[in-house]
Amino acid sequence: MLNIDIAKRVYDRTWKLDPIVRSLLDTDFYKLLMLQPIHARNQSVRTRFSVINRTRSVNLASIIDEAELRDQLDHARTLRFTKRELIWLAGNTFYGRRHIFRPDFLTWLESFRLPDYELRIENGDYVLEFDAPWAEATMWEVPALAIINELKSRAATRALGRFELDILYARAKAKLWSKIERLKKLPGLRISDFGTRRRHGFIWQSWCVEAMKEGLGSAFVGTSNVLLAMNNDLESIGTNAHELPMVYAALAGADDKALRASPYKVLEMWKDFYDGNLLIVLPDTFGTAAFLERAPDWVSDWTGMRPDSKPILPAGEEIIAWYRARGRDPRDKLIIFSDGLDIDSIETAHKAFAGRIRISYGWGTNLTNDFRNCASRPNPLLDPISLVCKITEVDGMPAVKLSDNLAKATGDPAAIERYLRVFGQEGRSEQAVAV
Amino acid sequence: MLNIDIAKRVYDRTWKLDPIVRSLLDTDFYKLLMLQPIHARNQSVRTRFSVINRTRSVNLASIIDEAELRDQLDHARTLRFTKRELIWLAGNTFYGRRHIFRPDFLTWLESFRLPDYELRIENGDYVLEFDAPWAEATMWEVPALAIINELKSRAATRALGRFELDILYARAKAKLWSKIERLKKLPGLRISDFGTRRRHGFIWQSWCVEAMKEGLGSAFVGTSNVLLAMNNDLESIGTNAHELPMVYAALAGADDKALRASPYKVLEMWKDFYDGNLLIVLPDTFGTAAFLERAPDWVSDWTGMRPDSKPILPAGEEIIAWYRARGRDPRDKLIIFSDGLDIDSIETAHKAFAGRIRISYGWGTNLTNDFRNCASRPNPLLDPISLVCKITEVDGMPAVKLSDNLAKATGDPAAIERYLRVFGQEGRSEQAVAV
Repeated sequence: MLNIDIAKRVYDRTWKLDPIVRSLLDTDFYKLLMLQPIHARNQSVRTRFSVINRTRSVNLASIIDEAELRDQLDHARTLRFTKRELIWLAGNTFYGRRHIFRPDFLTWLESFRLPDYELRIENGDYVLEFDAPWAEATMWEVPALAIINELKSRAATRALGRFELDILYARAKAKLWSKIERLKKLPGLRISDFGTRRRHGFIWQSWCVEAMKEGLGSAFVGTSNVLLAMNNDLESIGTNAHELPMVYAALAGADDKALRASPYKVLEMWKDFYDGNLLIVLPDTFGTAAFLERAPDWVSDWTGMRPDSKPILPAGEEIIAWYRARGRDPRDKLIIFSDGLDIDSIETAHKAFAGRIRISYGWGTNLTNDFRNCASRPNPLLDPISLVCKITEVDGMPAVKLSDNLAKATGDPAAIERYLRVFGQEGRSEQAVAV
Repeated sequence: MLNIDIAKRVYDRTWKLDPIVRSLLDTDFYKLLMLQPIHARNQSVRTRFSVINRTRSVNLASIIDEAELRDQLDHARTLRFTKRELIWLAGNTFYGRRHIFRPDFLTWLESFRLPDYELRIENGDYVLEFDAPWAEATMWEVPALAIINELKSRAATRALGRFELDILYARAKAKLWSKIERLKKLPGLRISDFGTRRRHGFIWQSWCVEAMKEGLGSAFVGTSNVLLAMNNDLESIGTNAHELPMVYAALAGADDKALRASPYKVLEMWKDFYDGNLLIVLPDTFGTAAFLERAPDWVSDWTGMRPDSKPILPAGEEIIAWYRARGRDPRDKLIIFSDGLDIDSIETAHKAFAGRIRISYGWGTNLTNDFRNCASRPNPLLDPISLVCKITEVDGMPAVKLSDNLAKATGDPAAIERYLRVFGQEGRSEQAVAV
C-alpha cells in the first residue's frame, strides 16, 4: 500500500466533475485579438452565436447527456481570467510586438465572464445558442465547441477497457509521430496548431502540441491555443476570423453598396486599431474571387492572406496570380493554409508553393483529433465531426457567411440569396466538408 | 503540490538499485520441471553454465557497466522462494495435473538460492559462468539472460528524453497489437509467451503478456514465465530443454554406444519421473534426423515434439512424415514451434500445418523484444541479440549441443567432432541465427 497515495485516491473518488475547460485562456488567440476592438468599438452590438453540427449523421443529443453538457457549460461560466494569465497577456510579446493588449482592455478582462447560454432540444438534437453583447457571446465559440467535442470523445471511450484505451492512445501517438516525421522533411516548414475547437480532448491536444514542439523544433511556430502557448512557452498564433466581416456586413443594413464595401471597412478598422500590425486578410467570407477583384490596392500591401474554404491548389494559385496582377512579388507575401489540412495536403501544398510565396500552415482537426484506425474495435464516435459555432444574428438581423464552398455557407436562406446577388457567384463551388 | 505523493518522490530518490529479477519465479517453467528430477536423481553432478553472446557485433562489456551487472547478479542471489510462491507451486494444477511438485522438492526449494557466479573480462568482453551443482547452476540460465538483456535495454534508452521514450513505447505497443490482430485471424490458434530470457525488460514483458491475454483470449494458452503466470492467472508453459540430453550425453563418457543411446535414456527418465505426463520430445539436441531414425517405437507414443533449430516447414514435414512412418496419425500429435518465431512465420506455419497436426507456438524474442523501427532516431542497441546460457561442462567433461543448425552448436571443438561422428551429419545445415 506504500505505492498508493491514499489521500489522492479518496479525493479522486469524490470528484463531481472533470471540467473540460479550466481557463478562459483555453481559447484561440484570434478571439482575444478580435475581442479587443469589439470591446473598444462595438460595445452596443448584440449578437447571437449558434452551434451548428454540419455532420448530420451524428445526433449529439443521443450521445451526450444533457445534464453533463450543462455542468460543463456552467463550469465554464464560473471561470475568470486569473491574475497570472492577465500578467502574461500584458507582459508578453505577440508577433514581435509588446503591449498589444491595452490597459483598459485588460482591466475589463478582469471581470469578464462567459454570458448565459440557451440549450434546448429541437427536431431531436441540441440547439445551443448564445445571445449576448458581441464582446461576450463571441468568447463562447471555442469553449462551446471544445466541450461538445470532448464530451463526444468521452462517450466514445466510456465503454473501452483499460487495455483498449492503452492501445488507442499508443496508436494515435504513433500515428501523429509518423506525420511529424514526414513534416520534418519539408524544407522551410512553418506550421502551428489550430486544433483547439475540434480536439479529441484537452490533454490530448496538450500532448499533440508537445509532440510538435519536440519533433519539429523551430518549424513548429506556435499554437492558436493561448493557454497552451503560455504553458509551453510557444507563440500564440492567429489574427482574425469570419465573424468580423459577418458583423460588419450585417450592420451595413439594406444598402447593397454598403454591404459590398463592408469587407474592406473591416480591414480598415483592423489596420487602424492595431497600428498596421497583424495584417492578415481572410478573403473568403463572401467569396474570394469577388473580394480580390474589388479590393482596393492597399489590400495588396498587407502581410498576406488566409484562404479558408477553397481547395489548396486553386486557392494558392488565385492569390499568387492576384498579387502579381497587382504588381506585388508573391515571394514577399504570406499565405496561411488552415482548411482541413492533413499530412498529404500539407506536402502537396509545400511542393506546389514553396519558393513561390511564403507559406504557413494552421493545422487543426487532423492534428488534434485523428483517431482513424486507432481503436481495437470499430468506433465511429471517435471520428471528428464538422461542428462550428457561428454568428447568426447581429442586432436582430441575420448574419451570413458564404465562403468559397457553399457547403460551408451559414445564414438565413433569404439573406444568403441577397448576399449571393450582391457579391456574385464567381469562383464558388460546393464540396463535402470533411472536418 | 497536492497532486504529488511527497513520501514516494523522496523515497524514489533514495533508490540504490532498480532490481531486474525480483522473484525466483521470474524464470521459465521448464527450469522448475527439470529441476525436480535433477534434484531427485542427479544431486552429485557438477556443471558449468556459460553465457554465450552469439551476436559478435555487440560488445556487452562496452555497453553494460560491470558494477551494475554485479549489483543485479548479487541482488538475484539474495532472492528466496516466498511462502506465497511455494504455496502456489504446491496448490496449483499444471497441465491439468495436481501436485506435480512433490513435498520433498518444495521443502528443498524453501532454502534454495542461486549459487555464486564468475564474472571476468576476456578478449574484451564479459565471461559470465556458473560452476555449481547442476540443481543450482541450472537456475541461473533465465535470470542471467534477463538481467543482461535488460541492462542492455537500459543502456539503449538512457540517453532518450521523456518524449522519445513515450513515442518508443507507443510505437512498440501499436506494433505488437497489429501482430495480435493478425494472430486473431488464425483459426484454432494456440500460442504462448516464451520471451522471458530475451525480453526488453520485465515490465515490458508483463505488458506484452497482458496484451496477448486481452487480445487473444483463450487462444493465448499461457506463458513460460512462472511469475507472470501466477500474477495473471495464466497457465505455466514448457516441459524440458536441451540441458537434459546434454548432461546425459556427457555422463555417457567415452563409450560411443552409450552416447548414442543417451537421448532416449533421458526420455525414459522423464517419463518415469513424471508418471507418463509432460511427454514432449525435444528431438534436435544432436540432430533431429538421427534422433528420429534411431528412436525406439515408444517415442512415437509421446504427446508431441518441439523442433527448435530447423526452418519451420522442413521441421514440420519431417515430424509429420516420421509419425506416419511409425504408423501414428499426426493429427493426434502435437508440434510446438518455438524457434525464432514472428508473425509471418506463425502465419506460414499455420497455413502449412493446421489440420495436419496439432500445433502450438512458443513465441519468444519477437513477442517481448521487438522495437525495430520504433525509436525516433536509429538505436541499434535496441535490437535483440542472440544471447544464450548453455551448459558447457559436466563433471569436468565438455557438454555439447549440435542442433540442426551448426550455427547453434555449442561445446569444445574436439567434442563436437566426436558427437558429429557418433550422431551423424544427416539433415544438418548452417543458418544465421537472428535471435
